[in-house]
Amino acid sequence: MMKEKKNHQVLIFALGGCGEIGKNTYVVEYQEEIIVIDAGIKFPEDELLGIDYVIPDYTYLEKNAEKIKGLFITHGHEDHIGGIPYLLKQINIPVYGTKLAIALIKNKLEEHGLLRQAILNEVTEDDVFHFQNLAISFYATTHSIPEALGIVVETPEGRIVHTGDFKFDFTPVGPAANIAKMAEIGQKGVLCLLSDSTNSEIPKFTMSEQNVGTSIKEIFRKVEGRIIFATFASNIHRLQQVVEACIENNRKIAVFGRSMESAMEIGQELGHIRGPKEIFIEPNQINQIPANELVILCTGSQGEPMAALSRIASGTHRHISIIPGDTVVFSSSPIPGNTLSVNRTINMLYKAGAEVIHGKMNEIHVSGHGGQEEQKLMLRLMKPKYFAPIHGEFRMQRMHAKIAMQLGIPEDHIFLLDNGDVLGLSKNQAKIIGKIPSGSIYIDGHGIGDIGNIVIRDRKILSEEGLVVIAIAIDFENKRLSAGPDIISRGFIYMRESSDLIKEAQRVLNEQISKQLKRANNDIKKGEVKSTIVETLSPFLYEKTKRKPMILPIIIEA
Amino acid sequence: MMKEKKNHQVLIFALGGCGEIGKNTYVVEYQEEIIVIDAGIKFPEDELLGIDYVIPDYTYLEKNAEKIKGLFITHGHEDHIGGIPYLLKQINIPVYGTKLAIALIKNKLEEHGLLRQAILNEVTEDDVFHFQNLAISFYATTHSIPEALGIVVETPEGRIVHTGDFKFDFTPVGPAANIAKMAEIGQKGVLCLLSDSTNSEIPKFTMSEQNVGTSIKEIFRKVEGRIIFATFASNIHRLQQVVEACIENNRKIAVFGRSMESAMEIGQELGHIRGPKEIFIEPNQINQIPANELVILCTGSQGEPMAALSRIASGTHRHISIIPGDTVVFSSSPIPGNTLSVNRTINMLYKAGAEVIHGKMNEIHVSGHGGQEEQKLMLRLMKPKYFAPIHGEFRMQRMHAKIAMQLGIPEDHIFLLDNGDVLGLSKNQAKIIGKIPSGSIYIDGHGIGDIGNIVIRDRKILSEEGLVVIAIAIDFENKRLSAGPDIISRGFIYMRESSDLIKEAQRVLNEQISKQLKRANNDIKKGEVKSTIVETLSPFLYEKTKRKPMILPIIIEA
Repeated sequence: MMKEKKNHQVLIFALGGCGEIGKNTYVVEYQEEIIVIDAGIKFPEDELLGIDYVIPDYTYLEKNAEKIKGLFITHGHEDHIGGIPYLLKQINIPVYGTKLAIALIKNKLEEHGLLRQAILNEVTEDDVFHFQNLAISFYATTHSIPEALGIVVETPEGRIVHTGDFKFDFTPVGPAANIAKMAEIGQKGVLCLLSDSTNSEIPKFTMSEQNVGTSIKEIFRKVEGRIIFATFASNIHRLQQVVEACIENNRKIAVFGRSMESAMEIGQELGHIRGPKEIFIEPNQINQIPANELVILCTGSQGEPMAALSRIASGTHRHISIIPGDTVVFSSSPIPGNTLSVNRTINMLYKAGAEVIHGKMNEIHVSGHGGQEEQKLMLRLMKPKYFAPIHGEFRMQRMHAKIAMQLGIPEDHIFLLDNGDVLGLSKNQAKIIGKIPSGSIYIDGHGIGDIGNIVIRDRKILSEEGLVVIAIAIDFENKRLSAGPDIISRGFIYMRESSDLIKEAQRVLNEQISKQLKRANNDIKKGEVKSTIVETLSPFLYEKTKRKPMILPIIIEA
Repeated sequence: MMKEKKNHQVLIFALGGCGEIGKNTYVVEYQEEIIVIDAGIKFPEDELLGIDYVIPDYTYLEKNAEKIKGLFITHGHEDHIGGIPYLLKQINIPVYGTKLAIALIKNKLEEHGLLRQAILNEVTEDDVFHFQNLAISFYATTHSIPEALGIVVETPEGRIVHTGDFKFDFTPVGPAANIAKMAEIGQKGVLCLLSDSTNSEIPKFTMSEQNVGTSIKEIFRKVEGRIIFATFASNIHRLQQVVEACIENNRKIAVFGRSMESAMEIGQELGHIRGPKEIFIEPNQINQIPANELVILCTGSQGEPMAALSRIASGTHRHISIIPGDTVVFSSSPIPGNTLSVNRTINMLYKAGAEVIHGKMNEIHVSGHGGQEEQKLMLRLMKPKYFAPIHGEFRMQRMHAKIAMQLGIPEDHIFLLDNGDVLGLSKNQAKIIGKIPSGSIYIDGHGIGDIGNIVIRDRKILSEEGLVVIAIAIDFENKRLSAGPDIISRGFIYMRESSDLIKEAQRVLNEQISKQLKRANNDIKKGEVKSTIVETLSPFLYEKTKRKPMILPIIIEA
């Protein structure tokens, strides 16, 4: 694969997840064996107009499919499992994950019609998988979804540890992290640690999930009307805390939003959510329950326009509209790109007459990622020889590297990997030895990769400046305009109020094209006339409007 | 103007600034006299694709131009003065503002070629303007721009006080707020207070600007390389603190970015920025200065793509590129819609090798708006009979109302105005008595208002789904297709890799249109064929791609 590749080296690289938040996909390769860790998607930033998701370029995995021993999943968040259907469509490799992760993956594969052929393996913290030279084991960790794992890849050159996403929650809602096992792994020796960098800029120890439980109970106790509670569906421990607060305060729960319904179901099935059956009511029963005995649990805490909460806020939900006395709780904090839509939802809810409790003012959300102090604890436990901060934007990776240096890891033992950078490791050496393809593939509707940069660029121009279509029919034989130019615009200006502008444009175009046709020899091509149209119209419109719409000439021979 | 209007009532309404951050424009009307307070713009949110600014609908002011006594400006921020050129183009009313505000307005008017005819009046805190029934006076306040004023409109029914934007900075960099005068106004009696709601969700007293100065000096003392300092150009006190830190630490300043250069010039002219001449160097001199003796002061603290800092970060600035040892200071906090672009800039700077100091970790920025405690102090000083929280989103207005209730103002004396709501006030009564037009006008390029909701909607569809143009020539006389259908797309899918899809679409269209032409009687219209094209192609493309591009049929008679 690359010139410097040596047979005794362990190769580590990311197809996604470095220099970004999202599409986590990491690869550990040794000789004829490849281990893939996670296969996530990324939600597009604002400049990727109309794109649903972004996945990594899986070319390297496809080309080396026969080497791949399995895809090992750290936990069931979208940025770690969302890419699985797209990956399995290309190569049907076995998938390993905890019960919850596998249940969430099954839902996903079913939607894509891939469930039947998929090879899914449920694992526990205690399982070990031996391959020819490599062995995979796990350790339990705490995160904002149950059953999160760290992954240990045992290689002939040493242990590679991938933390997954983690915080150190000493009073978690579910099982505790296995700190003893982490310490033991550290004692045995870690060649390289790949660790979650998300909160490396936060000089704190992230609060326990139980603190949120306390706040939830206090709110449930105080509020006299209905409570509409929005949070991330996958935060199943949070859902359990809502259930507990309901039991304590004699409230029933109705669940709204597809992903919330599914999380509730899976959570109960796997024993993470426990409560008496009577506490759960059907959506159509909510009007039979007194306001002070009801909690509506719903999706939409990120202001997603199609989610239950946004529809409640805008008055377009089928079952629920805001009534006086309602209190809406955002048990979440907005992801940077969602600030505006969350703001809008909050404003709409206030206008509809609700009280709103959100993160700024109350302790009703905690991060699932450890802050600096927890990152230090992980480094202390694992005592790695080499360190690669992963899972984060460059600024976060870099801050995480600084933290590692504070703990005595030499700067030249730390690697700020970008996606595709290949880190070659042996017992006593580590360096970047190459680069593999690691681009982004856009998914929009049904298509995988049929939207590329040109399409996105066009969408951007169209969105900012609009479009002007010029249609003409030319009789090339007799070198004359037989019809047009017709001018149609979209997203440019009000056509009806700009008839003078349009008429002048037509006149100018007519003149230029007729001149061109007259002058031309017999083999004048469509392309030449198209150029004339663009070169005539573009400066004309810019001068008149200071805008540069996309100009699309259409020439019909007739 | 409205049915319930009574001759002895004072009318108050906002054309912009209520239910939003931006385009502050408030009106106080009494009989034949109108006072306008501020004329701001709003920066568009993300769904207003390609729009430069938003201004209020000035129709009411145009129709009542002869009543208007003047436009009184509280301070020189864009959301308070940016609309002036557009307003003055429609009605040339006299403008009143402090020296700094007028200087900034002059720059603006000059750009629009309006300076010559504009009637600009410099005011001080002590000026009083008497009209027939109304009188205008001022009081000095503290904000993130010097020379900020609160405005008092004296009416026969009582005093109306507009706070402008304010914080209570007891150790300001410039002159102090005139608390004694505020108390005096309160003692004389305030009928209605219109007060800044921006930070009503923040349960704090905003830190003094001097604290920022302390942090800046500390950073300047510690950093050993060049310092690239980005902040809001209009925060002239901040610029002065940079100058002071430079003097203390023996550094020179080079200024980059048009608005920063202009702020430095005006600030020095008006005496807000004071420093020895030798401290300022020209952009082309920066390479002659040792790294530890240089500060580069620049625009771009909001990640604006064309600003100096973004170009430095991306390596496209003409004069400056990042060198090892550079430290970039963001003396700002990102406005919600700018979080992503600020993030991107920070990542780029780190990648280019700079250190970055930004708000999350350091006290290098404070808000210009008072928190809850300062809003309470204002209410205590003014003791208004009626209260209208303005300048903020609904959630902020509502929280501000709650604060006022805590101070004993009865709920029915508080008015959560939306833009256009007309509050009618007399000595002993206040209520909403009507609504005037208060829409948004979009400004894009040269045009005012030629972009409307339809254009924006089209841009949105184009940006998310792209466009498919179908061009055909029809010989209506002989009822046959004479050329086409040609299919062209932009922002939809890669055409080259989708030739099968295109061919099939052509076939289906050809079939349907031919059928229609055959069946049709003699007066078949273009519109009918267009409908056939859309109705045939839209479900076809959705089935094949799960996308709904805009379909634009073009029919040429030939």
